[in-house]
Amino acid sequence: MTTKTYQKFLGKIKTSSPLVLCLTNTVTVTDCANGLLAIGASPVMSEDPEDAQALAGLAQALVVNIGTINPASQAVMEAAVAVATERGIPVTLDPVGAGASQRRLSASMAFLAPAGIVRGNASEILALAGHGAGQKGVDSSSREGEEALVENAAKLAQRAKAIVAVSGPADFITDGHRVIKIEGGTPLLTKLTGTGCLLTALVGAYVGASPGEPLLATAAAHVHLAKAGEMAQARLERPMSLGSFKVALFDELARMEGSELDNPSGKAQWRLDA
Amino acid sequence: MTTKTYQKFLGKIKTSSPLVLCLTNTVTVTDCANGLLAIGASPVMSEDPEDAQALAGLAQALVVNIGTINPASQAVMEAAVAVATERGIPVTLDPVGAGASQRRLSASMAFLAPAGIVRGNASEILALAGHGAGQKGVDSSSREGEEALVENAAKLAQRAKAIVAVSGPADFITDGHRVIKIEGGTPLLTKLTGTGCLLTALVGAYVGASPGEPLLATAAAHVHLAKAGEMAQARLERPMSLGSFKVALFDELARMEGSELDNPSGKAQWRLDA
Amino acid sequence: MTTKTYQKFLGKIKTSSPLVLCLTNTVTVTDCANGLLAIGASPVMSEDPEDAQALAGLAQALVVNIGTINPASQAVMEAAVAVATERGIPVTLDPVGAGASQRRLSASMAFLAPAGIVRGNASEILALAGHGAGQKGVDSSSREGEEALVENAAKLAQRAKAIVAVSGPADFITDGHRVIKIEGGTPLLTKLTGTGCLLTALVGAYVGASPGEPLLATAAAHVHLAKAGEMAQARLERPMSLGSFKVALFDELARMEGSELDNPSGKAQWRLDA
Repeated sequence: MTTKTYQKFLGKIKTSSPLVLCLTNTVTVTDCANGLLAIGASPVMSEDPEDAQALAGLAQALVVNIGTINPASQAVMEAAVAVATERGIPVTLDPVGAGASQRRLSASMAFLAPAGIVRGNASEILALAGHGAGQKGVDSSSREGEEALVENAAKLAQRAKAIVAVSGPADFITDGHRVIKIEGGTPLLTKLTGTGCLLTALVGAYVGASPGEPLLATAAAHVHLAKAGEMAQARLERPMSLGSFKVALFDELARMEGSELDNPSGKAQWRLDA
Repeated sequence: MTTKTYQKFLGKIKTSSPLVLCLTNTVTVTDCANGLLAIGASPVMSEDPEDAQALAGLAQALVVNIGTINPASQAVMEAAVAVATERGIPVTLDPVGAGASQRRLSASMAFLAPAGIVRGNASEILALAGHGAGQKGVDSSSREGEEALVENAAKLAQRAKAIVAVSGPADFITDGHRVIKIEGGTPLLTKLTGTGCLLTALVGAYVGASPGEPLLATAAAHVHLAKAGEMAQARLERPMSLGSFKVALFDELARMEGSELDNPSGKAQWRLDA
Repeated sequence: MTTKTYQKFLGKIKTSSPLVLCLTNTVTVTDCANGLLAIGASPVMSEDPEDAQALAGLAQALVVNIGTINPASQAVMEAAVAVATERGIPVTLDPVGAGASQRRLSASMAFLAPAGIVRGNASEILALAGHGAGQKGVDSSSREGEEALVENAAKLAQRAKAIVAVSGPADFITDGHRVIKIEGGTPLLTKLTGTGCLLTALVGAYVGASPGEPLLATAAAHVHLAKAGEMAQARLERPMSLGSFKVALFDELARMEGSELDNPSGKAQWRLDA
């Protein structure tokens, strides 16, 4: 793998402007829309089953985020997933809070089979991997914890026949065989609501624009957000300026042209373990 | 028509602070509320039929935006529209995505009769004008396309007995007989989610504060957003800084005092074709 | 009461990071989440009864905001309130618009009994105090109006066995016997949507982190927002820059460390009338 790996994925978004049907939660929906626009994709949202079916028929990617799941929104997601599956467009799942409630875990499990990509934090991925809701999960900040986490993610990827991405101090993206580790980014991203949802939306755009390369496209989306976060943090005059950080983050998301993704400087690096 | 035309419309908002019942989509609802507050209007939102009826009984304007229409929100809109129609307060319709799905087109058509003002982009207005959902529409960037678009908008205005506003590289506002063309603004407005919804909300406030002059009041709202967009763009240190642009846009929306709307400098100009 | 009174309340949030289940309206939900994160709390939202029950079982505080109440969201709130009451975690109620519609007043009254804290503006608190919806309320900008307002708030507090907080040019927080007056802040806070909802969310975090001291904890939350508003306004280069003010407000919310809350300089002061 050479430098220049990720640049092409952003280039494909810029040239094709993939339509991403983003069925996400009400907390972060605005940020998901603006994030997709910032990188050059075309977001569309829906809260109606018939409408979502029609839009899934036009889209290049579907994102399903269960962060504020309810019976009505779940029906909308099911309608869209059916069309997406039939058309073969990628479904990216964000199992928000699957580690916190049985309701969320059940909803996430229901969308696991059609999902081509699953992105969550450690407790969410561990819950889907069979550890259930309510457990505290392994401590992914230790080396042993990290290894157990990656192992669980890889098993989930094999079982679900999906790319599984785990966000944390380092991000891991695996297809069950290969593992890409992304380091870098900034802890400030955890101080804003919805940066995980935003990342999942970006993953949707990346894999939608590059069919057939979901592992690398998912990693590229992670590098995009991590690099934008680093650049945004570097612009802050004072630490913990969360309002300014959010503004700078969307500036940097939009200003990224592609070459930054492969730039060996900066902290956001990747490593592929074949 | 002299300079000084639009200033009075903003003045009426500042002095009367019209209550605008804004039944809009979940993606842009926060921005609609902040935009209305920024220009001096009083926004109120509702998701309950009984509540929406009560608020429509107090409001000076109703905005109906179908961007995330669903059976529940449609019932809320219908309840509010009934009261607004009875009271004679203006209903402003935003047929978001009417060109993209039959569900959205049907919902938009259902609100067309009570609407006094319809604001959308070219594909939305063409869909309502009878070209249906799913068509690509004319190319409004060519002179021929622009003429066909204005013709369709004027026919729709006559048929619906409404003001029709079409947003694009240039905006056209017509009552079916007269056409106002607004040039200026900035393409950056298309890189943020919800600026169309925001414009529709501003139109609601402008027409609510100036009953009896919907054509000019609608145009004034368009000039307000276009000028604010230009001023916001001029403040950016680096292009494509979308986070900073959004912040600057709300600064400028709020700082506009009225005289800027008639200032012959700047790009946002109008022309009336009687 | 000495200086150093409020600092400890923020310290408890920073050290315990209370989980706040925030069942709020769709207009301001993102800002509530970011505000809670900014002060060091952990927000979680839900739109499903079963999920809300599970999360209420994990949370240190529940916030109920009826700003976009509807039958579905009311059922979610009822489910969560039942668990919160059983577990004895504090329920903070924001009766948004209770003075504007009977629907909102009824919903607010339904949550009054389980609420340990009620925070609203003058017309909302007066509506709950028995003056009903639709009345204009007393003029709280006069001395007589202010006294009548505080008297009504204190009676409501006694009747509901709750802390009642009234926001306005000055804020009053009362347990029915004692009254704390908070002066300071900035009128710019009324020009942004959702700053009242944000304040209610912060109150939820403060009382959740300091069980047993709801009066002072509620006051501390008010001082936090007022001080942050003052500091944010002081940073503006031009008045009425609402976009910039919002950014600065979240910067300052997050940068507050505690000692500022007791700093006698600045305008946000408190007075306790025992």
